[in-house]
Amino acid sequence: MSFSPGSLPRTGIGIDIHAFAPVEDAVPLWLAGLFWEGETGLSGHSDGDAVAHAAADALFSAAGVGDLGTHFGTDRPQYKGASGVRLLAEAARIVRAAGFEIGNVAVQFVGNRPKFSPRRLEAEAVLTAAAGAPVSVSATTSDALGFPGRGEGITALATALVIKTTTPVPER
Amino acid sequence: MSFSPGSLPRTGIGIDIHAFAPVEDAVPLWLAGLFWEGETGLSGHSDGDAVAHAAADALFSAAGVGDLGTHFGTDRPQYKGASGVRLLAEAARIVRAAGFEIGNVAVQFVGNRPKFSPRRLEAEAVLTAAAGAPVSVSATTSDALGFPGRGEGITALATALVIKTTTPVPER
Amino acid sequence: MSFSPGSLPRTGIGIDIHAFAPVEDAVPLWLAGLFWEGETGLSGHSDGDAVAHAAADALFSAAGVGDLGTHFGTDRPQYKGASGVRLLAEAARIVRAAGFEIGNVAVQFVGNRPKFSPRRLEAEAVLTAAAGAPVSVSATTSDALGFPGRGEGITALATALVIKTTTPVPER
Ligand SMILES: [Zn+2]
Ligand SMILES: [Zn+2]
Ligand SMILES: [Zn+2]
Repeated sequence: MSFSPGSLPRTGIGIDIHAFAPVEDAVPLWLAGLFWEGETGLSGHSDGDAVAHAAADALFSAAGVGDLGTHFGTDRPQYKGASGVRLLAEAARIVRAAGFEIGNVAVQFVGNRPKFSPRRLEAEAVLTAAAGAPVSVSATTSDALGFPGRGEGITALATALVIKTTTPVPER
Repeated sequence: MSFSPGSLPRTGIGIDIHAFAPVEDAVPLWLAGLFWEGETGLSGHSDGDAVAHAAADALFSAAGVGDLGTHFGTDRPQYKGASGVRLLAEAARIVRAAGFEIGNVAVQFVGNRPKFSPRRLEAEAVLTAAAGAPVSVSATTSDALGFPGRGEGITALATALVIKTTTPVPER
Repeated sequence: MSFSPGSLPRTGIGIDIHAFAPVEDAVPLWLAGLFWEGETGLSGHSDGDAVAHAAADALFSAAGVGDLGTHFGTDRPQYKGASGVRLLAEAARIVRAAGFEIGNVAVQFVGNRPKFSPRRLEAEAVLTAAAGAPVSVSATTSDALGFPGRGEGITALATALVIKTTTPVPER
């Protein structure tokens, strides 16, 4: 991989928010690329994986190529119900096709549940494989404040770093 | 432009939140540097353009030169009612005068309205011209949660990348 | 310090939220590494310094080594009541021990109080000394929206930039 001499990397930001689905709907929880057995799921056009979605949006943001709605919106029925991992992999492909190499992605999620820390390394491995670049995931609570504190939903915030390549990147 | 050998770029963060003004006040909506006809406007000392403000704050943050309050606060009456585009251009000038080149700025806003995607490229062009560096803008909703979900206001989050220059940058 | 040729820096994200403690508890306020006389304090396992905590989490996130819970969680009683400055210094040490040099950290906090701007430079000096790298701090309000707007608590958002070093960094 070669970069333009003197070229600067670009940074991006992503935020994604999903409400928990009603318990009686028995929606499964997918978050950070993992299935969480016995946990209430998140609502959404897709699987509601806010961590994977924020990561994808941060990549799009860094490359300046739009957002989840641009690429996977309701006018693209083929993505209805698509997993967060699939969307993240597709986002990474789009960003590389636009001429960028991906440095890293970092995501933090805010929510009361699921209890994330025991599965952090597992989540990072799955998302890193999807993006083809290091994805770190961390977690915190909102100290009982706001909608995450009331258990109504979760927020995920992400940043990403990419750099324009001088040579076209073949699609993977 | 030349950079110190081995020098690292610096990253910054910006967040800006504005409430929608009461409908009966008929405040015009300015957001992401654009006028949105027929939409309810945002409150604020200035035009309430949270996207432009978050972008400016991310630039200040990356350069470590304070924030919107430092430079455009209520003790600076000349900025009362100033447009977000003007403040972003002024922020970019201040950051360059402090010895930094601007790599890029990325902003995402969270809100139910206006419907952003049809005007994304237009917004990016206006903000990129103001900053003199690439500004990407993306959008999402909060899945009906929190104050953005209740339609009370919007949040914009931004990040920016700058690098210290070895040669003084003439003011533009 | 030498970096791998062609290596890219890594960016990270941190968010930290604390509720204000009940006034009658007379908890002192520590924020951004400073003591704020006469102000209501924040709740938390530690001193509730959301600015220092978000900075530490952004460093962990950039380096991909977990989060505050991983390193300073309730299962580490030696950190109970630890100051934000101590946790930030320890986070910087952990990140360097993992083979990263720290470029910078940038934090913005969202809250009605304390009035931050008069002490910004003082806060930046204390946190920069703790991290051994530039830490910028900025502030904003939430325009009376959400839990920061109701004065229930504050949010701090941070980003950080680190780069993998080619030579082991001795612990400081
Ligand atoms: Zn989503
Ligand atoms: Zn504003
Ligand atoms: Zn904390």
